[in-house]
Amino acid sequence: MITRMSSLFLRTLREDPADAEVPSHRLLVRAGYVRRVAPGGYTWLPLGLRVLRRIEHVVREEMNRMGAQEIQFPALLPKEPYEATGRWTEYGDNLFRLKDRKGADYLLGPTHEELFALTVKGEYTSYKDYPVTLYQIQTKYRDEARPRAGILRGREFVMKDSYSFDLDDDGLARSYQAHRDVYTRLFDRLGLEYVIVAATSGAMGGSASEEFLAVAETGEDTYVRSTESGYAANVEAVITPAPPAKPLEGLPAAQVHHTPNTPTIESLVAFFNAAGLGREFTAADTLKNVMLKTRRPGAKEWELLGVGLPGDREVDMKRLEASLEPAEVELLEEADFRKNPFLTKGYIGPKSLKENGVRYLVDPRVVEGTAWLTGADQADHHVLDLVMGRDFTADGTIEAAEVREGDASPDGHGTLVAARGIEIGHIFQLGRKYTDTFSLDALGPDSKPIRITMGSYGLGVSRLVAVLAEQNFDQDGLVWPREVSPFDVHVVIAGKDETIAAGAEKLAADLDAAGIEVLLDDRKSSPGVKFADAELVGVPTILVVGRGLASGVVEVKDRRTGEREEIAVDSVVDHLVKLVRS
Amino acid sequence: MITRMSSLFLRTLREDPADAEVPSHRLLVRAGYVRRVAPGGYTWLPLGLRVLRRIEHVVREEMNRMGAQEIQFPALLPKEPYEATGRWTEYGDNLFRLKDRKGADYLLGPTHEELFALTVKGEYTSYKDYPVTLYQIQTKYRDEARPRAGILRGREFVMKDSYSFDLDDDGLARSYQAHRDVYTRLFDRLGLEYVIVAATSGAMGGSASEEFLAVAETGEDTYVRSTESGYAANVEAVITPAPPAKPLEGLPAAQVHHTPNTPTIESLVAFFNAAGLGREFTAADTLKNVMLKTRRPGAKEWELLGVGLPGDREVDMKRLEASLEPAEVELLEEADFRKNPFLTKGYIGPKSLKENGVRYLVDPRVVEGTAWLTGADQADHHVLDLVMGRDFTADGTIEAAEVREGDASPDGHGTLVAARGIEIGHIFQLGRKYTDTFSLDALGPDSKPIRITMGSYGLGVSRLVAVLAEQNFDQDGLVWPREVSPFDVHVVIAGKDETIAAGAEKLAADLDAAGIEVLLDDRKSSPGVKFADAELVGVPTILVVGRGLASGVVEVKDRRTGEREEIAVDSVVDHLVKLVRS
Repeated sequence: MITRMSSLFLRTLREDPADAEVPSHRLLVRAGYVRRVAPGGYTWLPLGLRVLRRIEHVVREEMNRMGAQEIQFPALLPKEPYEATGRWTEYGDNLFRLKDRKGADYLLGPTHEELFALTVKGEYTSYKDYPVTLYQIQTKYRDEARPRAGILRGREFVMKDSYSFDLDDDGLARSYQAHRDVYTRLFDRLGLEYVIVAATSGAMGGSASEEFLAVAETGEDTYVRSTESGYAANVEAVITPAPPAKPLEGLPAAQVHHTPNTPTIESLVAFFNAAGLGREFTAADTLKNVMLKTRRPGAKEWELLGVGLPGDREVDMKRLEASLEPAEVELLEEADFRKNPFLTKGYIGPKSLKENGVRYLVDPRVVEGTAWLTGADQADHHVLDLVMGRDFTADGTIEAAEVREGDASPDGHGTLVAARGIEIGHIFQLGRKYTDTFSLDALGPDSKPIRITMGSYGLGVSRLVAVLAEQNFDQDGLVWPREVSPFDVHVVIAGKDETIAAGAEKLAADLDAAGIEVLLDDRKSSPGVKFADAELVGVPTILVVGRGLASGVVEVKDRRTGEREEIAVDSVVDHLVKLVRS
Repeated sequence: MITRMSSLFLRTLREDPADAEVPSHRLLVRAGYVRRVAPGGYTWLPLGLRVLRRIEHVVREEMNRMGAQEIQFPALLPKEPYEATGRWTEYGDNLFRLKDRKGADYLLGPTHEELFALTVKGEYTSYKDYPVTLYQIQTKYRDEARPRAGILRGREFVMKDSYSFDLDDDGLARSYQAHRDVYTRLFDRLGLEYVIVAATSGAMGGSASEEFLAVAETGEDTYVRSTESGYAANVEAVITPAPPAKPLEGLPAAQVHHTPNTPTIESLVAFFNAAGLGREFTAADTLKNVMLKTRRPGAKEWELLGVGLPGDREVDMKRLEASLEPAEVELLEEADFRKNPFLTKGYIGPKSLKENGVRYLVDPRVVEGTAWLTGADQADHHVLDLVMGRDFTADGTIEAAEVREGDASPDGHGTLVAARGIEIGHIFQLGRKYTDTFSLDALGPDSKPIRITMGSYGLGVSRLVAVLAEQNFDQDGLVWPREVSPFDVHVVIAGKDETIAAGAEKLAADLDAAGIEVLLDDRKSSPGVKFADAELVGVPTILVVGRGLASGVVEVKDRRTGEREEIAVDSVVDHLVKLVRS
């Protein structure tokens, strides 16, 4: 069926929307693909819905090809399964919760691990039934704190979520790898530029996990990669390489110094460099103790937490949060310091934390035998050569320090460089977190139960519309990859002559008959307006039917390269069919 | 792609689910099409999802063919537009409401009139833009008081809702008729047995409205049709034909009688027939005054309402509710009578209602000049020959009395018979209710604004899965119409012989290559189990590959008729392709 611009529900805008922060948002709104309804809630207009559906189609095709089976859950879900796994509270404010008319608690599903596990438990009993992989392409809900960038981070969005169920760890590893392969093929097919990075698993639980990030300057995720190896990781997932421990023997004894007015690392280093000790100090020699408070999901009380890290590094709150998830974490406020007078702001050391039972975690660089310049728990005093493992200990290590370009790559090869990306896929080896909760077992060949192990694999379907736009545009508008373009060919009637219109209609009809999806600009507007809209809308091939028709030629324009080619009217349909099918 | 029973996520059940009230629910659960997750919330397993998608496909094809354009709104919607039209409160408990993390009010969309009107207003300005018809196929939410019958009445369901926008009433009438035609074509294509009945418009507002009801004994909707004409109406929408008014002259005067112990119609009629007045009385001669209370949406206070109707008819609460919508209505309780001592239970007449300012509505049969035997507002007293228009008046008429088989058809032709059905579509001429609220105008050719008029058209997509099941089953299971069957052909390997399996695989592959969707039962189960499952699952054509293969024949079974035909292996693929495409 030919779609006509004269009746298409589409009004392109000349102005950028005021709230647009990124190119995809700006262009998808200007070109009439989406409209905002509420914060993080968008309407798909005809063009946008067509792109969304084509992406869905590609995702479905690839998922089916790997043998995954499509099912579909409700989005409105009862509380109980999520309460059983703890996610009812762990999700915090990110979960949309509501009550029905009888007062029963419901939520709008953010992901469906619980329901899939319960459903498999309901249907399957024998080891012979496994493995199985199920998926859905479904509308999901998350009450994001900062919905932003149009459909890049919405509160209602379309996701493909799949779940694998295996009898053993090897099976899970195979299912995981199969998903990794499918995602790779799928994103390649969509022509995306992306990286696969090591990731943390957050509220999902589980162990191995990787993210697929679309490369984009405007991305919210920062990842690092090695200059020399294939190592790449989301910054939250970077494991700091710990230096080897050093022998404690022969290290100088710790000494408390009177260090007036040195509450900052900078002032402290300056003080010691001016103290004439014959040693050169840098911020990296100091141990900064950052005070925080954490709260476990569902708990009322906050607990104090001290984090010790080299003074040349800031705490990266996103890394810290990822390390402590699902617990909440906040920096201490003035009131907290007042409530805990043993904390001498600017001069906090490991000693008083230990004495007052405060949990104390250190950066992995703080290994046994390292000597530090740190707070002496007394105003205007610091202690020099406080040695880890000799003068103080910690309750463990934590990844909280910022990762910097130039840091050594965790795999030992090269150094790290940073870049930004947008998460488009996330694959998890969940293991038995959910199957333990619901006792999902298969009856083994020996009639003994086998606890099933699970993987979970997300893919942002509606987000891909924005990500593809983000990677495919120029100053004139969108430039869709052929596979997801709302139409195959955009036919422009360029001229008021009746014969031109008739010729264009004929070509459009022939293309349509050949199975090509045609957008025909049959409006009475000027050619200039039509060309500008064609550039903005971004169909990859534009067929211009104009004055040349009288001499038997039409023009085919490649939206991406801008190349124009005159083609004989008689052969243009064949030409375009070949182009589209190529 | 061939789907294999050996790996299909499907377990058929031998037992009916305990909560199944209707055949479609029982069979869709037993045959593994859906599973219950919560009251009114169902998961679509692979077979169910396939049927749902095929129905969606038919709906989309027919909607596109009529020139309607598909868009898609969020389901999570801000309160404001619904507050503007009053539906935020009018919907009462049927609306799922929730708050986001910032405390802003949201709802889960039950229908989207507001959003469509606002969106058209946002895009279109000129009369040249109209008419336009937009639609979506979308998940909807309604907090039903009594979710029942599986997916027949769920709280989360898939609906096609479309909206027409026209410049004038004639345009709206055309858009309405176009939808009526599309629905007819669509339901015919799905092989449904249905009727089109006059309907009320309920909370939607608007004027003309018809329902498409699938004929089903288990249906919740009662409709009536004329024995002689094409008249058909939902019982709620039946307009009682009013008899002509009679002259007041010459009618006997009203007389109060002492009628001890006659609080019921039956006792009253018996009393007067025994009173020797020389007249024969029936219940139809009495005027029964039923006391109710109503409350407007958002109001706190209940208001009294008296409804007067012939004593031989009961009040039909559904008709009464439809007449008073969007106000709530309830029967008076004892406490209400105590609060209003002028109401003499069993002896209430129009007089005290009038004197005490109670709103009083009468059945349309209570016309001027009709004389009634009714309460005298005094215990053990009734009044005879109380004449409407002479001795009492009402504040209007109301459709509250039950409709009975044998009643005269409102169109004057024949009498009414009743039947039951399931609403599958509802078309409304909304008019300007919503466009007035949002000032949706087009700029006319004379630069003056033209207020747009709107139609709204619903179609229950997921419900159709159940309705089709309800109309297509037998004692052995489901029997899908070809157009919506989850598969085209169900191939059963009937025999353990390797050559039989190989032959079946070959046929399945050939069918698949010809574009036929094949379900292949390659399990190790006995032929008996496989045949029973094939009957239960209900694919219309079953190909049995068994011992006959050795002599070059296979069996094709028609699931509906049970007819079996032996066909040569060499020609069976062609035979089946023709059958499926026919």
